Amino acid sequence: MASTAGKTITCKAAIAWGPGQELSHEDVEVSPPKAHEVRIQIAYTGVCHTDAYTLSGKDPEGAFPVILGHEGAGIVESVGEGVTNVKPGDHVVALYTPECKECKFCKSNKTNLCGKIRATQGKGVMPDGTTRFRARGQDILHFMGTSTFSQYTVVADISVVAVQPDAPMDRTCLLGCGITTGYGAARITAKVERGSNIAVFGAGCVGLSVVQGAVAQGAGKIIVVDVNAAKEDWARQFGATDFVNPAKLPDGQTVVDKLIEMTDGGCDYTFDCTGNTSVMRAALEACHKGWGESIIIGVAAAGQEIATRPFQLVTGRVWRGSAFGGVKGRSQLPSLVTDYLEGRLKVDEFITHRKTLKEINKAFEIMKSGDCIRTVVNMKE
Amino acid sequence: MASTAGKTITCKAAIAWGPGQELSHEDVEVSPPKAHEVRIQIAYTGVCHTDAYTLSGKDPEGAFPVILGHEGAGIVESVGEGVTNVKPGDHVVALYTPECKECKFCKSNKTNLCGKIRATQGKGVMPDGTTRFRARGQDILHFMGTSTFSQYTVVADISVVAVQPDAPMDRTCLLGCGITTGYGAARITAKVERGSNIAVFGAGCVGLSVVQGAVAQGAGKIIVVDVNAAKEDWARQFGATDFVNPAKLPDGQTVVDKLIEMTDGGCDYTFDCTGNTSVMRAALEACHKGWGESIIIGVAAAGQEIATRPFQLVTGRVWRGSAFGGVKGRSQLPSLVTDYLEGRLKVDEFITHRKTLKEINKAFEIMKSGDCIRTVVNMKE
Repeated sequence: MASTAGKTITCKAAIAWGPGQELSHEDVEVSPPKAHEVRIQIAYTGVCHTDAYTLSGKDPEGAFPVILGHEGAGIVESVGEGVTNVKPGDHVVALYTPECKECKFCKSNKTNLCGKIRATQGKGVMPDGTTRFRARGQDILHFMGTSTFSQYTVVADISVVAVQPDAPMDRTCLLGCGITTGYGAARITAKVERGSNIAVFGAGCVGLSVVQGAVAQGAGKIIVVDVNAAKEDWARQFGATDFVNPAKLPDGQTVVDKLIEMTDGGCDYTFDCTGNTSVMRAALEACHKGWGESIIIGVAAAGQEIATRPFQLVTGRVWRGSAFGGVKGRSQLPSLVTDYLEGRLKVDEFITHRKTLKEINKAFEIMKSGDCIRTVVNMKE
Repeated sequence: MASTAGKTITCKAAIAWGPGQELSHEDVEVSPPKAHEVRIQIAYTGVCHTDAYTLSGKDPEGAFPVILGHEGAGIVESVGEGVTNVKPGDHVVALYTPECKECKFCKSNKTNLCGKIRATQGKGVMPDGTTRFRARGQDILHFMGTSTFSQYTVVADISVVAVQPDAPMDRTCLLGCGITTGYGAARITAKVERGSNIAVFGAGCVGLSVVQGAVAQGAGKIIVVDVNAAKEDWARQFGATDFVNPAKLPDGQTVVDKLIEMTDGGCDYTFDCTGNTSVMRAALEACHKGWGESIIIGVAAAGQEIATRPFQLVTGRVWRGSAFGGVKGRSQLPSLVTDYLEGRLKVDEFITHRKTLKEINKAFEIMKSGDCIRTVVNMKE
C-alpha cells in the first residue's frame, strides 16, 4: 500500500478555469478514492481534439473549472472499498467509455456504450455527485470520467483497465482514445471483410488507425481522402493503397464520383474521421448501392446536422456511427495492447511530438498544425 | 401452347397519356415476347401509391405515355426463346425488383436489388431498349418492368416468379408489392428479434405488413403510429399491441418522447412507412441508444432530404432502408404465398375495395380516402 493511501494528495495539474483560456499549471488537491473508485498516478497523457473542443467553449455541455484529458496511462496508487478489478501497482489505461458489465447496455452485446455512470460523468462529477479535485479553495470538475491532465486522478472502477506492465505507458496512453477508436471502428463496428474496398476521410490518428484496422481485416482497396497532400505519405505508411486529395480533382468531379469510379460502383465501407457534416454526407454517398455502410466517427460541432436523400438508404446504403471504436474497454482493450506489443498495431509512429505537463499548452498549439498526429505529455515534469 | 403465341395480342389497358391525366381505358397492341421475355395474361392488379405518384407528374423520372401498375398476378401466355424459369400456364406474380441470380448484386448475398436490367427498366423499355406496347400508332412505355394495368403485359424472365396455382390470384397480386415490402422489412431487412420493441409509422398496407412480420418474429411491443384514429382498430387486428396518435399527445410531448417513455429508452427497431422525411427523422430518434435501427420504407417526394444530428448515429442508432422488403422475388416470394395459404400471413384483410379495369380511376380516388387499404382490380372486365 502506498504511503499516500487514504490521504489527500497535492500534485500538479493543468486546470481549465474557463472557456478559451490557456490551461493553468498549478497545485490541485486530489481526495482519496471512495467506494468503487480508483486513484491513478498518471504517467503519460495524449492530447486530443475533444479536449480542445471543450476548452474552446464550443461544447455546449462543457463546464468549468475542469481538469481535461482522456488519453491517459498510469499506475494505480490506491483503491476504494469494493474495488476488485484493479489493485495498487497495476499499470492501467483510463477509460472514458466505462464498462460495468451489469447495465442494460453492457448486457445487450450490441454496444460498448455503458450506461451506468453516464449522467454523472456528463456533469463532470463522480458517481456520488461530488468531485475529488480542489484548487484555490474550490471544487474542480472531472472530464469524461478520466481527467488525465493531473498527476493524480480519481476514476470509477468501471472506468479503468489493467494492461500488461511491460507495455510502455507513453504508448498505451494513446490506446485510451484515438487509435482504439479507429482500429475498433474498422474491426468491431464495421467488421470490414476480406477484399472489401474502404475509404477513410481524414488522415489523423483516428483515420490512420481505421487504415490499420482495415489492413488487419484483409481489406482490398484502402483509400485515404484528405485535403492535406502531406498526409499521403502517412497514409501509405499505415497501409493505404490509394490516396485522394479532393482539392486536386479535375473540374466537375466530386470526391463521391472519384471514389465510385475507383471502386466500380462505390465503397463497401467508408469512415468519416473529420467531424465535418458535409464530409459525412459524401462518405455515405460514396458507398456501394445495396450494401455499402458509412460509419461516422468524427464529432461534429454543436448544432450541425447530417442530411441526404432517403433514396440513398432505400437503395441499400447504411448509416451508422462508432464511439471508442465499439471497443468494450475492460474486456477488449488488453488485446489491443497485445496487438501493439506483438507488432500488429502501430502506435509509436503516431507520436510526432513530446511535451511535459508544464508545456501542455504548446501541445494544443501543435495539434492545430498539419504535421502533428499526436503529442504525448510526460506528466512527471 | 396458346393459339396467341408468337402473335401480337390486342387487348384492353389503362394508359397514362400524360402527367395528372386520368388513365384511359382503350386498346393496346402487345407484341410477342422476345428472347428471355415472358408474356403474361394479368388477372388481377393492385393499385399502389407509387402508381399515383408517377401519374401525378411529381416523379422526376416518370415518362409518358406509359402503362402503370406493378402489383400484378396472372398466367403465363407465352415465353420467348431461352426462358426456363416459367412456362405457359404457370400462375405468376410480376416482380418490379427482378432477380437474375448472376449479377454482382444478386451474388453478393447482401441485397435484393438486382442490377441486371436496372438501366432499361428505369427508362420504361425492355432490356433490348424497345417497348412491347403500341396504342394509337405510337409506342407506349413500360413501368417498373411490370405494367400490370394491361390485360396482357410483357416482362423480362427475371421479373416474374411462378407460385402455387391454388393460391387465388386476386390475393397473390398484393404480394407483388406492399405486403411483401412490409413483411420482408421486418423479417429480412431488420431481422426483428424475439421480444424486441418496434414502432411502425403509418398504418397502410406496408405498415400493417410490418406489424405482421414483427408478430411472426415474436416481437414484444408493436406500436403503430398514425394520425388517423380509425387506423387503431386496423393496427390491433394485425397484431399491434399499442397505438399512438401523434395528434393527440399532451402539449409539449413529441412522438419521440412518447415512444422512448413507452419502451424504457427507445425502440429496438422503427419503420417509416409514410414517405414523410420529418417522420423518418422521428423514427430514427425514437430508437434506443446503442443499437436501435430505423428502416426507411416510404418513398419521399423528389428533392426531399432526411436530416439528424450525427450524435444520434455515433451513440449507436443505425439508419437504413428497405426496398421490396429485402425479398429476392424468385427465391423467396413463393414462401410468402405458402405463409398466406397456411394462415401465417394475412392478405384477404387488406382488400377493402374491388374494381374492374374500366373503373380503375375510381381505385385511385379511393386510395386517397383514409378507409382504403387496397383496391384489387379485376382485369377481365
